[in-house]
Amino acid sequence: MTDQEQLTISIIGTGRVATHLAHHLYQQNQEIQNVFNRSLQKAQAFANQINAKGIDDLAQICDSDIVLICVSDSAITEIAQQLSQNQYQGLVAHTSGSTALQVLTDFGLNSGVFYPLQTFSFDQKIDWQNTPIFIEAKSVDSLGKLKVLAEIFSPKVYQYDSAQRLSLHLAAVFACNFSNYCYDIAQQILDEKKVDVDLLLPLIDATAEKLKYGRAIDNQTGPAVRKDQHILKMHQSMLESNTGWQKLYQLMSDGISFRARTNTKCHEQAGKPF
Amino acid sequence: MTDQEQLTISIIGTGRVATHLAHHLYQQNQEIQNVFNRSLQKAQAFANQINAKGIDDLAQICDSDIVLICVSDSAITEIAQQLSQNQYQGLVAHTSGSTALQVLTDFGLNSGVFYPLQTFSFDQKIDWQNTPIFIEAKSVDSLGKLKVLAEIFSPKVYQYDSAQRLSLHLAAVFACNFSNYCYDIAQQILDEKKVDVDLLLPLIDATAEKLKYGRAIDNQTGPAVRKDQHILKMHQSMLESNTGWQKLYQLMSDGISFRARTNTKCHEQAGKPF
Repeated sequence: MTDQEQLTISIIGTGRVATHLAHHLYQQNQEIQNVFNRSLQKAQAFANQINAKGIDDLAQICDSDIVLICVSDSAITEIAQQLSQNQYQGLVAHTSGSTALQVLTDFGLNSGVFYPLQTFSFDQKIDWQNTPIFIEAKSVDSLGKLKVLAEIFSPKVYQYDSAQRLSLHLAAVFACNFSNYCYDIAQQILDEKKVDVDLLLPLIDATAEKLKYGRAIDNQTGPAVRKDQHILKMHQSMLESNTGWQKLYQLMSDGISFRARTNTKCHEQAGKPF
Repeated sequence: MTDQEQLTISIIGTGRVATHLAHHLYQQNQEIQNVFNRSLQKAQAFANQINAKGIDDLAQICDSDIVLICVSDSAITEIAQQLSQNQYQGLVAHTSGSTALQVLTDFGLNSGVFYPLQTFSFDQKIDWQNTPIFIEAKSVDSLGKLKVLAEIFSPKVYQYDSAQRLSLHLAAVFACNFSNYCYDIAQQILDEKKVDVDLLLPLIDATAEKLKYGRAIDNQTGPAVRKDQHILKMHQSMLESNTGWQKLYQLMSDGISFRARTNTKCHEQAGKPF
């Protein structure tokens, strides 16, 4: 590899992550050699779109500079074993936020992680310029290659170790998956009383927006911060028909109260209606 | 009251809600007669800003067309009793999302609710044009007055009953207070590993943004939807030092799994990394 143009890549998998990575590389005139799927038909259909060769046997894989494993977390180990048995010589990187580099230990210095922090849907365009990419590798040489690859996608390239990447994934589960579940419960509560769910949108936006200017703990409002026992009890009784939501309400409120006790700014906000 | 110009208003309280309501009315050349606070000094300091008269005794209140009770939820009943003892004759409306109209029963047909769905801080300007205002009243005449008042603030005026308003408040606690607490936990997790908390901002924005185009249940992603036991267990062990967060993680994941079982679109999204 002498410059960016000559970096050759193969992709294992044909799912969402594989699709978005491959299409972006293809658009940037980056050569993709192989695409692997257990179904040759699927592999070839995918490969045809990006001028690559589809394969259904990892023994056939070219010695690309980098092979990107874009399969579900639980399948990474098996794919790595197959690649290793076939004595693949290039750099092997997985694309999982929640898998340690360690699973690619068979590849020694030629192992790495290439993790774009983004939610991928088939039907949504990715804003790569604003997608942070986390790289990690066992050697300086491997890290260099991953850096070149990452910069084809985004200016936001970070070198984080596995523990940091795993904590980022766990944090994203709280900040995104769990907050979305809170939205879901809110919408169910409103549906039951025939109240327009879109009424919450400006408040939800404002809550997310505030994170750009301060810490979440300093923005916390609501009855739990205010220790408004009257409201807390009323809400508990309104949730009587759903013990799961009741427990969640209690646990959330206890957590918020506990945090508020040790935070000054939080107290100052206590007068807000939410 | 023959037209909007002649609607006279008094305000009880000098907190965040009172401040924002009074200042907007003043800017709109709306006459405010009295401002009440138990401290005459505070009442007068507030009143001076809006060309009104400060009072510390509800016996002195003018017969305004509308008196707005802008005090903490727990103080509304007491204020209502005092107003009632002083035989106040105009329309009395409280501004609480979490208090039923019922608490103003002493005022019969002259009772109502004027509830702006918004978070109020002293230092933040309110975007009134996008603030929904919920009104409720015991009579058509009272409702008409509240509608005139509400339209001075916002084009988004809704007539909802107490049960609907209460459900909206409960829903907002889930959608805003609890999602903010999820952000707070996420930030604490990242702090511990020295990972930049701002990395989550685009994901948080995307999660909130998606609500504009679909229901939260249809947008749900993450290990609980995918039933990824490996990740779920790993996250539980990463949270070992905090049993509160562990319980929350479990309860959230159980809830999400349960919802996912009954939702088709949710399954389709299961391959997403979050």
